[in-house]
Amino acid sequence: MKNKKEINAAIIIIGNEVLSGRTKDINTSTLSLWLNSLGIEVKEVRIIPDVEKKIIDTVNELRNKFSYVFTTGGIGPTHDDITAESISKALNIKYGFHKDAFSILEKYYDPGEFNEGRQKMSKMPITASLILNPTSGAPGFYVKNVFCLPGVPSILKSMIGGLNNVLIGGQPILSKTINLRTYESEIAKSLTEVQNNNQDVDIGSYPFFRAGKLGVSIVLRSIDKKKIDNCNSQILDFVKEKEIKIVEID
Amino acid sequence: MKNKKEINAAIIIIGNEVLSGRTKDINTSTLSLWLNSLGIEVKEVRIIPDVEKKIIDTVNELRNKFSYVFTTGGIGPTHDDITAESISKALNIKYGFHKDAFSILEKYYDPGEFNEGRQKMSKMPITASLILNPTSGAPGFYVKNVFCLPGVPSILKSMIGGLNNVLIGGQPILSKTINLRTYESEIAKSLTEVQNNNQDVDIGSYPFFRAGKLGVSIVLRSIDKKKIDNCNSQILDFVKEKEIKIVEID
Repeated sequence: MKNKKEINAAIIIIGNEVLSGRTKDINTSTLSLWLNSLGIEVKEVRIIPDVEKKIIDTVNELRNKFSYVFTTGGIGPTHDDITAESISKALNIKYGFHKDAFSILEKYYDPGEFNEGRQKMSKMPITASLILNPTSGAPGFYVKNVFCLPGVPSILKSMIGGLNNVLIGGQPILSKTINLRTYESEIAKSLTEVQNNNQDVDIGSYPFFRAGKLGVSIVLRSIDKKKIDNCNSQILDFVKEKEIKIVEID
Repeated sequence: MKNKKEINAAIIIIGNEVLSGRTKDINTSTLSLWLNSLGIEVKEVRIIPDVEKKIIDTVNELRNKFSYVFTTGGIGPTHDDITAESISKALNIKYGFHKDAFSILEKYYDPGEFNEGRQKMSKMPITASLILNPTSGAPGFYVKNVFCLPGVPSILKSMIGGLNNVLIGGQPILSKTINLRTYESEIAKSLTEVQNNNQDVDIGSYPFFRAGKLGVSIVLRSIDKKKIDNCNSQILDFVKEKEIKIVEID
């Protein structure tokens, strides 16, 4: 845990399927939006392969740098699911059957159906706390500041709410988006001035193509609503002066 | 450049809009599929904020570890576009107007329209080679083994083809996907045996929900088609024995 003002996080997406380009990662977006709402800012994301040493090194590097680390993927029953064992090694905690996880899964499956593969899903650092899974039984887990979630987006989404009372957040990061019908280069200079006058607001500028039309999204982010509103009105001033069309403000 | 057998790459996605969860990254998938087709394996992806020191440190770490590094984002005209200057600092090459880039952009815009913001897009490491942009004029660039592309997915996609003859690839990585109507835990043990007998094939197992039905995608990856086919037939053996329905093989 770093200083009280900034509570931050890193995300580690574990899985060859994302690195190969076959699967587009959407868990980063789900986790970041949720963490932002709790006042936890995601500072870095890494996508890494199912390789034990790589998982261990990455987890150990990031858990010392950030308040929280979230991993996704690699906690299923197959041979390429090596996250739980790798985390045990990274944190130097015994890897084995977790009593509560075992009993949850034993109840979840019909008698005789709790086979070896399914039992494997209850193996993890034995002192871990569980993250309950309302969708498909097999729990995630957390140890210290490392939280391990599955890779299937719908299952991950169903599990994170259970952590709202576990995580200690900061002040929620607020945002406002101003969509304009213009080019970035038309507003670059004015926007730089606004940024220089509003150092506490993070101003991002992103070109978009939507319904065949070009535009720019200006995104203002801060923990202070008043500062965002102030910044917003300075932007609307130059937008009016330049006679730029406002598509929407959100 | 590492040894001849493995040509690999890392991708650095630069941009607060992806870290905040507002924008879902799809450039990783585009770049990885394209690089795979050239025999270049993506080993790691990092998503980092628009922060100069972070960009410099990440680029310098990864360009020494991997054959190629690709960055996306931060080469537009606004104040938050700091990639080109950061790369100059990372590689210790003067940052300034690139003659060819300047002349491309000067021709691209109508007379009088080539304003300060647009001129900024021709600033980069002055000895860089250009990556032409058929969509919107402003070129990307590369220096040594670092390739800098824009963040807008459609523009990025239009530019990468121009690099096919610049990159030195390895043997293309081939893949086969077997989609089964089963649960991972039903096949985990058999799949482990197949993986143990086929160490040169990377076997991934990924549960899916599609049209309301559960299934598992088994993905076989190797540079050797014969080894993939051999592995495939061993999988089909246990699939038949277990009477599992094959959804499709691709």
